[in-house]
Amino acid sequence: MTQALLFDVFGTCVDWRSAIARAVTKALPGVDALVFADAWRGEYDPAMARIRAGDRGYVALDDLHRENLHRVAERFGVRAPDALAQAWERLDPWPDTVAGLHAIATHALIAPCSNGSIALMARLAKHALLPWHCILGADIARDYKPKPAVYLAACDALRLPPEAVMMVAAHNNDLAAARALGLKTAFVARPTEYGPNQTADLVAEADWDIIAPDFLVLADRLVDAR
Amino acid sequence: MTQALLFDVFGTCVDWRSAIARAVTKALPGVDALVFADAWRGEYDPAMARIRAGDRGYVALDDLHRENLHRVAERFGVRAPDALAQAWERLDPWPDTVAGLHAIATHALIAPCSNGSIALMARLAKHALLPWHCILGADIARDYKPKPAVYLAACDALRLPPEAVMMVAAHNNDLAAARALGLKTAFVARPTEYGPNQTADLVAEADWDIIAPDFLVLADRLVDAR
Repeated sequence: MTQALLFDVFGTCVDWRSAIARAVTKALPGVDALVFADAWRGEYDPAMARIRAGDRGYVALDDLHRENLHRVAERFGVRAPDALAQAWERLDPWPDTVAGLHAIATHALIAPCSNGSIALMARLAKHALLPWHCILGADIARDYKPKPAVYLAACDALRLPPEAVMMVAAHNNDLAAARALGLKTAFVARPTEYGPNQTADLVAEADWDIIAPDFLVLADRLVDAR
Repeated sequence: MTQALLFDVFGTCVDWRSAIARAVTKALPGVDALVFADAWRGEYDPAMARIRAGDRGYVALDDLHRENLHRVAERFGVRAPDALAQAWERLDPWPDTVAGLHAIATHALIAPCSNGSIALMARLAKHALLPWHCILGADIARDYKPKPAVYLAACDALRLPPEAVMMVAAHNNDLAAARALGLKTAFVARPTEYGPNQTADLVAEADWDIIAPDFLVLADRLVDAR
């Protein structure tokens, strides 16, 4: 039986694109905010890739966000204030996220297993009222998803075997990494995470244990499975 | 300004003695449950002392509780089920705890800085509805309070300097350790933690930054100090 659910956060629980674009509009008037937001997010995976490969020691995502901000700002010919990087702490949940998490939290442990740091996830939990029981993810593993260590460190911290834990994500590759380690998997599509022209992760690409349109349906399916 | 509050948990947020005695009554009929509870708690500090001293590597409190349970049961001439150790995951909050934490959580980050593991604190949060933003404490430092590393690892995880963080405890020695590192301090007396004959920690033994009778008054004092 699933005793704990781990959640991807950026894209799965919260809509990063809208909030980042709003913050960019405010801090950098004259810049195309959505294009800037996409470019900033585009630097996310390459920055982590160096750390996953061992070319750089573990650096928290807060710092990578700040470094990436300045790299992208230079490309846009503007100077960005350091504080703009804190916009990642103030993202808004999808409409079903908070109610869905509350429903799931009555039956099972819930925690983010995100590449965000404890500091970032705690501030986001405060802002978006995400009712986590604890924060797991990159910081406790000192590495980045989809490296196996991150999922395994989360299970270890909960003192649960992988088969008692379910990973929830809007990204097929995140679930593939979790399934390979024995975790259960749930896919919730977020087809506008990358805007109206999103092409990836529109549908489940494998027979994940649960495929649900939102967190409320996920909560119901979990109860049905008990 | 205080941006985050760290809370001691056993005794400060929850009444361990009553719930442990109830669980002992159920699992070990015929044993004097309060005496057993006190004896079990009595093994807590000596078990951690070996780890603090470096005589033993870090072992999570869940395991120490189980080891101590069997040691005490032997002394009482009974055999205890391993599962009884999970009683520490189902302690009840003091009457003011949950409402106080909710009030504080609207203004600042809140997290336990306890010697309980992430697993134990997460399950206790689920049981007692403690609205933490994240779980800090022994597990992330891999050492036990009052060792400085535990308080400092908590501040680091929040990316805050010690002076922006306040330690809240019903135990003067916990606050003394935190103050020595530059954290702010708040004392909330829990004069029946050890039962009606408690002799220690009945009053604040230093000029802690805040001295409050419960978490609701603590919440008010924090707002006044803003």
